[in-house]
Amino acid sequence: MTGPFPFSAIVGQEDMKLAMVLTAIDPGIGGVLVFGDRGTGKSTAVRGLAALLPPIEAVAGCPVNSAHEGEIPDWAQVADRAVVEKPTPVIDLPLGATEDRVVGALDIEKALTRGEKAFEPGLLARANRGYLYIDEVNLLEDHLVDLLLDVAQSGQNVVEREGLSIRHAARFVLVGSGNPEEGELRPQLLDRFGLSVEVASPKDIDTRIAVIRRRDSYDRDPGGFLAEWRGEDMALRQRILDARAALPGVAAGDEVLRDCAALCVALGSDGLRGELTLLRAARALAAFDGADTVTRDQLRRVAPSALRHRLRRDPLDEAGSTTRVLRVVEEVLA
Amino acid sequence: MTGPFPFSAIVGQEDMKLAMVLTAIDPGIGGVLVFGDRGTGKSTAVRGLAALLPPIEAVAGCPVNSAHEGEIPDWAQVADRAVVEKPTPVIDLPLGATEDRVVGALDIEKALTRGEKAFEPGLLARANRGYLYIDEVNLLEDHLVDLLLDVAQSGQNVVEREGLSIRHAARFVLVGSGNPEEGELRPQLLDRFGLSVEVASPKDIDTRIAVIRRRDSYDRDPGGFLAEWRGEDMALRQRILDARAALPGVAAGDEVLRDCAALCVALGSDGLRGELTLLRAARALAAFDGADTVTRDQLRRVAPSALRHRLRRDPLDEAGSTTRVLRVVEEVLA
Amino acid sequence: MTGPFPFSAIVGQEDMKLAMVLTAIDPGIGGVLVFGDRGTGKSTAVRGLAALLPPIEAVAGCPVNSAHEGEIPDWAQVADRAVVEKPTPVIDLPLGATEDRVVGALDIEKALTRGEKAFEPGLLARANRGYLYIDEVNLLEDHLVDLLLDVAQSGQNVVEREGLSIRHAARFVLVGSGNPEEGELRPQLLDRFGLSVEVASPKDIDTRIAVIRRRDSYDRDPGGFLAEWRGEDMALRQRILDARAALPGVAAGDEVLRDCAALCVALGSDGLRGELTLLRAARALAAFDGADTVTRDQLRRVAPSALRHRLRRDPLDEAGSTTRVLRVVEEVLA
Amino acid sequence: MTGPFPFSAIVGQEDMKLAMVLTAIDPGIGGVLVFGDRGTGKSTAVRGLAALLPPIEAVAGCPVNSAHEGEIPDWAQVADRAVVEKPTPVIDLPLGATEDRVVGALDIEKALTRGEKAFEPGLLARANRGYLYIDEVNLLEDHLVDLLLDVAQSGQNVVEREGLSIRHAARFVLVGSGNPEEGELRPQLLDRFGLSVEVASPKDIDTRIAVIRRRDSYDRDPGGFLAEWRGEDMALRQRILDARAALPGVAAGDEVLRDCAALCVALGSDGLRGELTLLRAARALAAFDGADTVTRDQLRRVAPSALRHRLRRDPLDEAGSTTRVLRVVEEVLA
Amino acid sequence: MTGPFPFSAIVGQEDMKLAMVLTAIDPGIGGVLVFGDRGTGKSTAVRGLAALLPPIEAVAGCPVNSAHEGEIPDWAQVADRAVVEKPTPVIDLPLGATEDRVVGALDIEKALTRGEKAFEPGLLARANRGYLYIDEVNLLEDHLVDLLLDVAQSGQNVVEREGLSIRHAARFVLVGSGNPEEGELRPQLLDRFGLSVEVASPKDIDTRIAVIRRRDSYDRDPGGFLAEWRGEDMALRQRILDARAALPGVAAGDEVLRDCAALCVALGSDGLRGELTLLRAARALAAFDGADTVTRDQLRRVAPSALRHRLRRDPLDEAGSTTRVLRVVEEVLA
Amino acid sequence: MTGPFPFSAIVGQEDMKLAMVLTAIDPGIGGVLVFGDRGTGKSTAVRGLAALLPPIEAVAGCPVNSAHEGEIPDWAQVADRAVVEKPTPVIDLPLGATEDRVVGALDIEKALTRGEKAFEPGLLARANRGYLYIDEVNLLEDHLVDLLLDVAQSGQNVVEREGLSIRHAARFVLVGSGNPEEGELRPQLLDRFGLSVEVASPKDIDTRIAVIRRRDSYDRDPGGFLAEWRGEDMALRQRILDARAALPGVAAGDEVLRDCAALCVALGSDGLRGELTLLRAARALAAFDGADTVTRDQLRRVAPSALRHRLRRDPLDEAGSTTRVLRVVEEVLA
Repeated sequence: MTGPFPFSAIVGQEDMKLAMVLTAIDPGIGGVLVFGDRGTGKSTAVRGLAALLPPIEAVAGCPVNSAHEGEIPDWAQVADRAVVEKPTPVIDLPLGATEDRVVGALDIEKALTRGEKAFEPGLLARANRGYLYIDEVNLLEDHLVDLLLDVAQSGQNVVEREGLSIRHAARFVLVGSGNPEEGELRPQLLDRFGLSVEVASPKDIDTRIAVIRRRDSYDRDPGGFLAEWRGEDMALRQRILDARAALPGVAAGDEVLRDCAALCVALGSDGLRGELTLLRAARALAAFDGADTVTRDQLRRVAPSALRHRLRRDPLDEAGSTTRVLRVVEEVLA
Repeated sequence: MTGPFPFSAIVGQEDMKLAMVLTAIDPGIGGVLVFGDRGTGKSTAVRGLAALLPPIEAVAGCPVNSAHEGEIPDWAQVADRAVVEKPTPVIDLPLGATEDRVVGALDIEKALTRGEKAFEPGLLARANRGYLYIDEVNLLEDHLVDLLLDVAQSGQNVVEREGLSIRHAARFVLVGSGNPEEGELRPQLLDRFGLSVEVASPKDIDTRIAVIRRRDSYDRDPGGFLAEWRGEDMALRQRILDARAALPGVAAGDEVLRDCAALCVALGSDGLRGELTLLRAARALAAFDGADTVTRDQLRRVAPSALRHRLRRDPLDEAGSTTRVLRVVEEVLA
Repeated sequence: MTGPFPFSAIVGQEDMKLAMVLTAIDPGIGGVLVFGDRGTGKSTAVRGLAALLPPIEAVAGCPVNSAHEGEIPDWAQVADRAVVEKPTPVIDLPLGATEDRVVGALDIEKALTRGEKAFEPGLLARANRGYLYIDEVNLLEDHLVDLLLDVAQSGQNVVEREGLSIRHAARFVLVGSGNPEEGELRPQLLDRFGLSVEVASPKDIDTRIAVIRRRDSYDRDPGGFLAEWRGEDMALRQRILDARAALPGVAAGDEVLRDCAALCVALGSDGLRGELTLLRAARALAAFDGADTVTRDQLRRVAPSALRHRLRRDPLDEAGSTTRVLRVVEEVLA
Repeated sequence: MTGPFPFSAIVGQEDMKLAMVLTAIDPGIGGVLVFGDRGTGKSTAVRGLAALLPPIEAVAGCPVNSAHEGEIPDWAQVADRAVVEKPTPVIDLPLGATEDRVVGALDIEKALTRGEKAFEPGLLARANRGYLYIDEVNLLEDHLVDLLLDVAQSGQNVVEREGLSIRHAARFVLVGSGNPEEGELRPQLLDRFGLSVEVASPKDIDTRIAVIRRRDSYDRDPGGFLAEWRGEDMALRQRILDARAALPGVAAGDEVLRDCAALCVALGSDGLRGELTLLRAARALAAFDGADTVTRDQLRRVAPSALRHRLRRDPLDEAGSTTRVLRVVEEVLA
Repeated sequence: MTGPFPFSAIVGQEDMKLAMVLTAIDPGIGGVLVFGDRGTGKSTAVRGLAALLPPIEAVAGCPVNSAHEGEIPDWAQVADRAVVEKPTPVIDLPLGATEDRVVGALDIEKALTRGEKAFEPGLLARANRGYLYIDEVNLLEDHLVDLLLDVAQSGQNVVEREGLSIRHAARFVLVGSGNPEEGELRPQLLDRFGLSVEVASPKDIDTRIAVIRRRDSYDRDPGGFLAEWRGEDMALRQRILDARAALPGVAAGDEVLRDCAALCVALGSDGLRGELTLLRAARALAAFDGADTVTRDQLRRVAPSALRHRLRRDPLDEAGSTTRVLRVVEEVLA
Repeated sequence: MTGPFPFSAIVGQEDMKLAMVLTAIDPGIGGVLVFGDRGTGKSTAVRGLAALLPPIEAVAGCPVNSAHEGEIPDWAQVADRAVVEKPTPVIDLPLGATEDRVVGALDIEKALTRGEKAFEPGLLARANRGYLYIDEVNLLEDHLVDLLLDVAQSGQNVVEREGLSIRHAARFVLVGSGNPEEGELRPQLLDRFGLSVEVASPKDIDTRIAVIRRRDSYDRDPGGFLAEWRGEDMALRQRILDARAALPGVAAGDEVLRDCAALCVALGSDGLRGELTLLRAARALAAFDGADTVTRDQLRRVAPSALRHRLRRDPLDEAGSTTRVLRVVEEVLA
């Protein structure tokens, strides 16, 4: 038995793990942006989450993982239309991937050999109904990040290039990792990520030893280590599935909406994306908690992840973003 | 029943909605430039307007939506020339669209397989007789914006590239959104937009709650929400159709022309585009009001949208553009 | 009946209109450069002049509008060699035109399908014996402007690219519009335009009203407006034709040559292009005036257009170019 | 008999030689970065190590040196599947190598002649199960270094370009040489190299004479020189093979893990890569020493190589990186 | 009868005319660089000289104008090998000529249609045994100027590109015009031109009138004007032919060589190109004068043209280059 | 009889001539870098040396001049394998040569016509066993110089591009000329040239006269001049051949190695390339001198050429590099 490092075996980093779990419950929350140094397990977490999520049902050969025959795009030639189980797709955007491979492009082979203008789907097609992971998103060019966020938000990939005019479903959660010392993202781009979290290496020695020990065990005997943690991973999978089922029934009263708006006004976040994300994330957390109504408790717990990256710089306030969010949460939700 | 968020259900943002309605009455007014932060519903408004506008009659397979057989360009191969109803086209210029897809280009497939030099129309062809929407117009290269404005104004797309020498009708309203913090447009480009409006997130909490509630209702039950607002949308459609019919009969006396000129001279706007836009927008508003003569009231209501983006910077006057227009309107039309 | 806004109906802008008329009488004067803000009717004037000029006699299918069979270039395949009437060509250089479409290039279709290295003529071929209009000439790259001026002056388009070695007649008047706030032309390029004029929006309100009223009339009923002004346009056409016929007989005595040289020396203009242009423009004006000899009066009237753009910057003289020319004209021709 | 300069005959440079030997014992330690001037024998050492390492068993024609039939990637067409002995591959990344040759690319020949979209493997394929040497790694573009480090760490080359979507094993040790005066590597890249060493020309004359004498002997009679040193090289090969075999059995107790963590916390190195590398390198050194348990002695000897390049700049501490590591080692492991 | 403006009819500009005549007598002197404003007749002079020079004898269809069959390069396919008279070639390097057209390139047509790798000669081939004229040589990229000077000096065009490895004779005189205000040539390039001259518009009014009158006469009746000046042009042609014949017999004694060296040492010109050019130019001038020995008189007359562009800037000497050369000539040849 | 200017007839420039002769005796010394102004005979010397060197024996049609059948690379298709005499190749790197022509590239003709992926060798192949001359090496891009030095040092051209993976012998002496005023080479590149020399125009008039006289004689009667100097050239050729034969027997005792090391340590040159070059050059000079042992005399004579370009800038020592080397030579070898 082989597989990535188990999600449940990750030591600490609770914010990051919660944010990822919430997007697994409600992909509509939008992407997750993870800030922090290299070597803090960001990619480990995404790969672990991928392995833990339940498989999807999809048409066997469909390039966009359509759930049933009616969803197959007209440009796709799919011979066998049987519906099978596939692992939840988790697509890596490798360094050096060219734009044509991201959005899809003219199929050169068919063009040259058969003179046909066929569409060759890209990574965005493969990521449909799953996750798309980008390491060091701040090293990508802004226009590519913008494009990825556009697609992630609209759920549609629209291609207008090389004589092609194509569209297909591309509903996925975008997970980006970034190192703030390597150059910043434009505020406009930040605002379009659903949640953001900060990760750091643990500073106390016992935690560090725990991390090294688990990692070393996994490196020396992956099979045994995976077997050891399978139970915890499966329990988390079930809890996510339960929350997905419960989500449509979770109520959010007017006072919750008022709290959302009051928090955003107090923090001076532009636009209304902040409120909407806060509401959806709190609702997903309530479902994960097994509650049928959103309460201030859930708002409090998701507010930093939902709002931290939407603040304007305040030159008179030296506190970091997280501190400012927490302070306002205390005041408004007192 | 599915569709975009209803135009009538948009909370507030009256300036933006009026400017869009006026260009629906008289497309000759020119494009609309919408300034403001992300998340203030700009693209929602355009998509809503698109869904509300009445269908056009067009030749079935014509790539430029020709109204009848005589308008089909000579390079277009249209087999079935029946006239059918089509929705008013609203074309998005997606991020990363290449210039060849915008203006059209050599049809590579036909060139390679049949050795034919055929024209493959682009987005400008598809936008004929409708709307072309560009998000973040200030992120486009100046030469592309200039090209789009040229075409929008002349109503003709002239292509001289790759051995092609093609022209076709391209009458559309250009709607661009821009964030002034992301880099400015050159004054020459600003001047070529017909109207401009400024949008911002509402600051009072009750309005924000109203926005979130409507959005949340739509997200959770689109069909029900659309049904709820269909009546208001259809009433607005009728009012636009009535105004279109009445427009040629709306009179603008010499004193209106004098007012237009006096406003522009007082504001020091270069060129005469300001006066002409002011006149056309006021006439369209009069038609929308059901009036048969343009009055100072209509001038007053459209002056900010028609003139705001044509002012020269005045280093001695710290007031914003809108304030300056309003002040001059008060003085001149006192 | 349809057509562009009539040349005769343009309000004011006498300098611009005269300069264009002179080049219609003697194309050898060289191009016209029009300085001024957008919205001052520059392109309207060129389009109006085009519609007013008499048709030319040309070989039916000849790509360079040859006047008779003997002038057809050897690379052109012209089946039917009948001579027909064509409107005086007025070619727009659209924004985004690529160099291959300007000068002509290898015919890709013939190369790919027949393996033939044929020449596909460009805009310079189509402009032969007519006008070439470039909006915002200062936005073009210097090397392209230089190329256009070279061709305009030599009357020959020499193409050495892509394995082609082609030449053909390209005698046309280059009309460029430029906005001095958008970046300057190099002095070397300025010097190669024959005439230059400055245009501005009228400042007095009655003129502005007149402009708007005529424009509004034309926009609302083009056919009626054109009929109204056809008489004036035809009278101007006849006067131009008469002047063309009279031109070879107009005498310019030694004292005129001395005046030309004295003006240029006094203004310190480099080279001798100034004198030659001044002489030709004055001779054309005399022909337009119906005179058979050039007098100081004609020199005075064309001197600003012929010399304004050839002055060196004089840091001790704060007067504008036009003022300096007028002052020297008064002194020298006192 | 011919071959490169023998590894054992290299005078001095013990740090560099040890680091390379350790990666030969445990390739999972990660790459080696060698800092120092040109002419200090860096490439000589790599070439010598390559010649000394034992051959690998690999499928005869397999482009990625698969150990047995089951590992051959699906895109590879391998006719004869016999397993043969091959020298441990050591691949040079030549200056000017293009990215397509590094990661592999579309096979143009097959595309053009057979219309097949086949993958042509690159240098990363050839380097599988061996070494990849890059001279002057700081002259490469960051994105290429990043890509190489990604592949080296994951052991997989993922190609998404030109319509190809390919992956294959690429487990190799990356050895890069760099001259700190020629421009620095980003900290993020530094951190991803396993070990780093500093080399310099010897300053005392007798050592220099020894170096020149050995080099001159080799240049004048390579065969005789190689024969002379073969014994020492073979002894080292055996010691490396013994250490590889012993490695899985080498124990590292909790106090060793605690020492690793304490060193990294004291040095303030971000992330946990430092601890893990330190642990693996010490374990490999213990195996090389013939010990069955890691002791503080091994930690001390590998700490500079494992940690030197992971320190943050400390503006208050003028000591070089090596000095700072040694000082902290003395304090923590006192 | 038609043709360019006659060389003999050029008013003044004696330095420029003499320099061109000398290179017509001895092409080995090297190119001529003409400094000066536009509109001073530089291109007129080259075109006039071209028309005046005697025809050459050349193989009919040879792309490099070979004098007899034995000189035809092996890559040239020449069917008819008759020797005919051709005008002395004078090739213009048009603005926008691409490097492939200058040096020659792969014949794309033959490559595509016949799969043959044939060489298509460029402008350098056509210029063999004639003149190559470049307007505004300082607007060309340095590497292209360098290439042209290399070929002009070696008399061979060596092409190593696109899989071609070709060489052919390319003996021509390079005439470049330059405007010092438009950017300077590197000293290394200056030094490789044989002669340089400065031209300026005449400042006195009578001369200017003479220029305008002749130009106006030519423009209005080219045939008559050419007939009027043909006698003078033919007399000059004969004098050039006589000087060519006499050149090998012109003696230059040791005292002349000593004068050349003394002048160059006194002026501090680097390299020995100055002396060699001075000697060759003086010898050509002696032949033109009908003398059989070079005297100090000829040295004096050609020294400014041969040395002016080879001086180092002397910050303590404010005199211009020409003045400095003349002063040293007076001292050394006193 | 024709040929380049004879090497023996070059006046002065002894350093340059000696350095070139030494590399003709032992090509392993590495390339020669010649600093100095244009017009000092650098390319004349290389061309003269080429004509003087004895021919090589090589397989008739082999693209890399293989000495016998066994050396022909596997990619070369050589029909006739007879061994013939060829002049020692001296290849010019012409300005504008593209990288594909330098290292070799895919043979486009074969690819297009036969669908074969054949290698077309470049200049590096042709230069095998000879000289490669680059004028103005400092105008080349660093990466190309680096590549050339890599190949010159390893004696192998490794090509990894366009789907090709080729290597072939490329043993040649690189001779580069450079003008220090035109931009410097990076120290890393300088260090990789074997020898460097400085040349300048002679300052005394009699020498200059001698140079001009010889050059003028050659230009006016090449055949006679070559005959006059053939004896001296042939004597030098024989001396070079004798030195080549004697080289392996020349002894260099420990005291010579100590002197080499002491010189380099005293001069602070990094790396050990300085010592090795010094030793090889002194040994070649001893062979040229007819001596059987290297003495301090030879070290003294070659030290400036071998070390001058390897010094670090010393801001406290204003003396030039040559002066510093000479001073240290005096001290160390006193």
